[in-house]
Formats: sequence, C-alpha cells, structure tokens
Amino acid sequence: MKLSGVFTTAIVLMAAAMTANAADDTKFIPGKQLTLIGKAAPTPDRYARIDTIKYDGFTDYQRQYLNQTPAGMALVFNTDSERILANIDYKRRVTGYNTTNIAMAGCDLYIKRDGKWMYAGSGLPSDKGEAVTLVSDMTPGMKECLLYLPLRSIIDEIYVGVDPDATIEAAPNPFRHKIVFWGSSFTHGTSANRSGMAYPLQLQRATGFDVRALGMAGNSKLQQSYARMLADTDADAFVFDAFSNPSAKEIRERFTDFVSTIRAKHPKTPLIFQQTIYRGGRNFNTKTDKAESEKMALSEEMVRKAMETDPNIYLIYPVTDTDGYSCTDKIHPSDLGYYNWMNSIRQPILDILSGYGITAE
Amino acid sequence: MKLSGVFTTAIVLMAAAMTANAADDTKFIPGKQLTLIGKAAPTPDRYARIDTIKYDGFTDYQRQYLNQTPAGMALVFNTDSERILANIDYKRRVTGYNTTNIAMAGCDLYIKRDGKWMYAGSGLPSDKGEAVTLVSDMTPGMKECLLYLPLRSIIDEIYVGVDPDATIEAAPNPFRHKIVFWGSSFTHGTSANRSGMAYPLQLQRATGFDVRALGMAGNSKLQQSYARMLADTDADAFVFDAFSNPSAKEIRERFTDFVSTIRAKHPKTPLIFQQTIYRGGRNFNTKTDKAESEKMALSEEMVRKAMETDPNIYLIYPVTDTDGYSCTDKIHPSDLGYYNWMNSIRQPILDILSGYGITAE
Repeated sequence: MKLSGVFTTAIVLMAAAMTANAADDTKFIPGKQLTLIGKAAPTPDRYARIDTIKYDGFTDYQRQYLNQTPAGMALVFNTDSERILANIDYKRRVTGYNTTNIAMAGCDLYIKRDGKWMYAGSGLPSDKGEAVTLVSDMTPGMKECLLYLPLRSIIDEIYVGVDPDATIEAAPNPFRHKIVFWGSSFTHGTSANRSGMAYPLQLQRATGFDVRALGMAGNSKLQQSYARMLADTDADAFVFDAFSNPSAKEIRERFTDFVSTIRAKHPKTPLIFQQTIYRGGRNFNTKTDKAESEKMALSEEMVRKAMETDPNIYLIYPVTDTDGYSCTDKIHPSDLGYYNWMNSIRQPILDILSGYGITAE
Repeated sequence: MKLSGVFTTAIVLMAAAMTANAADDTKFIPGKQLTLIGKAAPTPDRYARIDTIKYDGFTDYQRQYLNQTPAGMALVFNTDSERILANIDYKRRVTGYNTTNIAMAGCDLYIKRDGKWMYAGSGLPSDKGEAVTLVSDMTPGMKECLLYLPLRSIIDEIYVGVDPDATIEAAPNPFRHKIVFWGSSFTHGTSANRSGMAYPLQLQRATGFDVRALGMAGNSKLQQSYARMLADTDADAFVFDAFSNPSAKEIRERFTDFVSTIRAKHPKTPLIFQQTIYRGGRNFNTKTDKAESEKMALSEEMVRKAMETDPNIYLIYPVTDTDGYSCTDKIHPSDLGYYNWMNSIRQPILDILSGYGITAE
C-alpha cells in the first residue's frame, strides 16, 4: 500500500510535469526572423506602414498612430510544429467598440492546403503578456503559414510559438503583383471580426495578389501627404477607396491634384477608384442619405472626367448590401459586408488588370 | 459697429443655445412604459430571462449572470420623433474580445418600412451614462420601432430618447407564433456585430415569428434545470441548438431525459433539434475535428432514435460555412456565418411548422 501510494504520487507529479511542459516548453521565434509581407515601403520601424519622417503634412494622429499600425501586414513562414501560438509586445494595445478586440489587437492564421489558404485559427494575446494558442494538434509535416497582424494596435514585436523540437523558417512571399490599396476605415477593416477579413486581405488570398493595404481609418481624404507617399510607392496597380472619408468639398478641391501627384511618378500605372458604399445609416437619416448621394454623384463625375484624358484610370462599384443589413454601427460593414465587398470587386479588378498582363494565380 | 457686434454676439449665443438644446432637450422614456417582447416567461426582474428562484439546479454563473441578460429581448414602440437615442442603466456592463461591445452592451434599432424591418441604427451608450444617438434627421410621421437590447450585459433600465414634442407610445407585439429557441453561444449571438444579428432574431424579422431566444453561452448542456424551465414555457414550437456545448458523454446521458421532461408538459409541440455547426478550428486541429465529428454523429443518432417513436421531433442542419471562412475565434461565426445560418434553417423550419398550421407573415 505504501509503495502504491508512492507510485500514485509519482504518476500525479509526472502528469503535472507533462501538463506544465505542454505550456512552458513552447519555442518562441521573433517575427524579425520570419518574412514580413504587406508593407508598401520600407520604414524605420519594422511594423509601421509609412516613414513619417520622410513626408510632410501628416497630422500627429496620422504620424503617431495610424501610420504606425501593422494593418495589412502578415508574417509568412514554414513550420512542422503541431501547434502555433502567438504573443505580441505591444507599443500600444488598442481595443474597440465596433470591432472585436481579436481584430483590433490579435492575429489571424491561415495555412495553405491544396493550393488554397485555409483559416487555421485566430485569437488575442492577453494584456498580461500571455501567448494565445492559434491552433494545436495538427498533423505532422511542414506547413506554409500566413499570420496576419493586428489592425489597430502598434506593436514592437510579434512572437510565433512552436513545439520545442519543431522547425520554423522564413518562407518566400507567396503573393505576386504588387497591388497597393489606400483608403478609409473600410480598407483598414473596421468592424471586421479578425484582421484577415479586411476586404483587401480577403482579395489577397482569393487572387494571390501581393496586396499592400493602406487603410487609414477616418483619414483617407485625398491629402497630398498620402499622395506623395503613394507616388513614391512601387506598384503594379493602385486601388483607391478615396471617397469614403472626404467631404464633397474636399473631393472637388483635392481629387485632381491627388491624381496628378501620383501620375507624376506613375504615368501609366492603373489607378482603380472604388465608389464608396451604401451606409446603413442612410436608411432613415435623410441628411446622411442626401449628403452621401450627392457625394457619390460628385465622385463619379470627377473620376469619369479624369478617365476622359487618362486611359489608365478606372471606376468600380463595391457592394456590401443595399439596405444596411450588414452594417455594424450605421457606417461599417460586418464580415458579411466585407465578404460581399470582396466578391463584388474581384472580377472587375481581374478584368482591368488582365489588360496589363496581371493575372491571378 | 457696436450694435453689429452685439448682434453678432447674440447670434453666436443663440446658435450655441440651439446646439445645446439639440443635445439637452431630449425626452427620455423608460423601457417599462413601452412593450417588451422576446421573453420566454415572466421574471421578477423585467429584463431577466429566467426566474432563477423558481428553478433548482442552476449554477451561480447561470443564476447571477447568464439568465439575467436581456439577450433576445426588444422594446417595441411607435414614435413620430425625428431622432431616436438610447441610454442604459447597467447593473453589469460587460465587454468582450470576440464580439463587438455594440453587441455586448449596446442596442440595435429597426424600423418598419413597406412591411419590412429595416436597419435604422445601432450603438453603444457610454460607460459614463451618456446616451447614444441611434438615428436622427428622419422624415416626419409615426414609425414602428423595434429596439433590441444588449446580448451580454445586465441592465436595470433602458431609456429611449426622442424629440421633446414627439409622441412615443407602447406598440403591440408585431410578431406571432411563439417559437422558443434554446441553445449555446451561437444562439446567444456571440461574435455577432450587433444584437439583432443573432440568428434567431434575424429569423424573427424574416418570418414575423414571435421568437423567444434563450441563448446560454457555454451553458446549453441539456441540463434538467433548463429542461424544467422550458417545459413550463408556453410555446408553439421549440428550436434547440442543444449539441454545441455538451460533450458526447453528456449528450448520451442527458438527451433522453431532456426530451422527456419537456414532453411531460408539451406532449405534441414540435421539438426541432439543430445539428451543431462546423467550427473553423476543425480545419487543422485533428482532435477537435475528431471530437466534433463523433459528437455530431452521436447527436444525429440520438435524435433519429427519438424520432422513431415521436412524430413531432425533427432534426435540421444549419450551415454557416464548410471551411471556417466565417469563423471569428476558431468557434463562433461572424455576421456572415449567422446570416448563412438563418438562411439555411429558414425554409426547413417553415416547412415543419406549416404542418402545424404555423405560417410566416
């Protein structure tokens, strides 16, 4: 009986040790050892989007916050680990009211299977520094992984956790044809439930295009500061959600100069302008409905006029819904809306780009 | 010049006063003066879902929190106000990581137009006690309004704000045929972007059924406590999401007794069981995939067996997606998933209920 008691104790201790090991022996690899994709241009801070020293005219909010978020970026790597965790050193951890915190501050993992990017797991590292398990108990073998970074937090570093004996290595960028998106909170992914559901990133996975998504929530107003940055950006095509944030007055005053600044350095690159979407708040707010309607008419007029003399400018029409069904907060679509958005622009963009020899995978 | 200065000052002061008025003269009506719908049964607290004194067996978490949330409830009223605000006295204001705080603690307004419930606005009252404007600048005239309450907070009272000279009055319940839903976080609406996007409430608006949605996030495990409460509940039909939370063992041990307890008081009421859904986490987690697959097979077997002797038991199959596309956090669908869920069960439920003389509007 005595011996049996010792054995029982030993088994309990072993079980406890195994459990502890499962949690504690994770090997964490900093993102800087892996491949970072989705950046439009180099920046001093690895996970920032825009070099704010290089350009004049940004507001403090844009310089210190929006331009610094890693929205649109992802790490790509290969690993044979049977589980994948993530942890983040936040410079600024931002939470939200109209967006899940998984999208605001967490990450979103895809793994390639049969040539297709499949959802693998998403989650939010704790604000106490604890990692989140994105997926576990996978089959053995090397896997190609795509890990989207948070939409609205600023990060110092992200760490990918794997089994202690697993291989993990930087993978080549799986995407091709540099398509630069620039736009509003819609392009940023506000009210998406996880970062990979921002519509440009859905399009990235659906087409294989090397999308660089510069969503600037509330701050996409055809400014010269952003036009100069975009002009400096290497791109096979630009896709703009340029009419969602500015007022009609701003569109009238700024649109032509915005195009001119980009055209000075990209004389023939396709510039695809997206009309803004129907906002759910228009259903009953007559003022919003009138203002949006007038703004959409003006946007269309401005683009159509530019198209008369520039054969490489295009106008396309994203549709999320026509009755606010997918609206979260009078303005922003849910994943339902962003899924519809992506589907509504996919073929029009493919049709346009095929004229430039740019085709999907 | 002196006089002109006085006039200018007066105009500025008047403008300031008008602005202040617009914010300050709102008339707030407590929810208790309006019609509350969506409750399965009376409770001591107006905005609670279950009388926790009446039933044995609830855990503290269920008694003190889950059963007390107003998920699935809405106020209905008529008003000719040109704006509608909402404010909430929270007993417990709960926020989330996989769900927007608009859904967790805010409200979601629909207005009837041409016989259809149209999205009008949604938002989150501040935690400092400030109201949120759900819609403004509406056309004159009486409107029929449906205001969904928060999914995951506990409230003392909700206040509807209208123009000071506006009429606002309790409206009759616009829905008919009492369809009682009971289930997991899926039925509760976890990861929906606003409360009205919980799938039972989408179905309510789409069919006109008087849905009573008892979503018990994480706690829908075929317990006798809930079975007794459901047995006492007046219902034209029950729809269960009963296999998402329990383990296979719990399903095997509890399913028959769960049905028996309800059948003792509802001998012929249709009991519609929903299979659980495909979870995104299954894509790569072999353990989850196997466990879920086995559980689904067992659930199907248990229901099919019950159907052999009970002609009023049914099994239907909700589909959100088959590849985790709409998943938020390895488990919960986004609005994209909940929209697909509602659409996948709508016709099957209508077909079943038509056999009982229950038809949509």
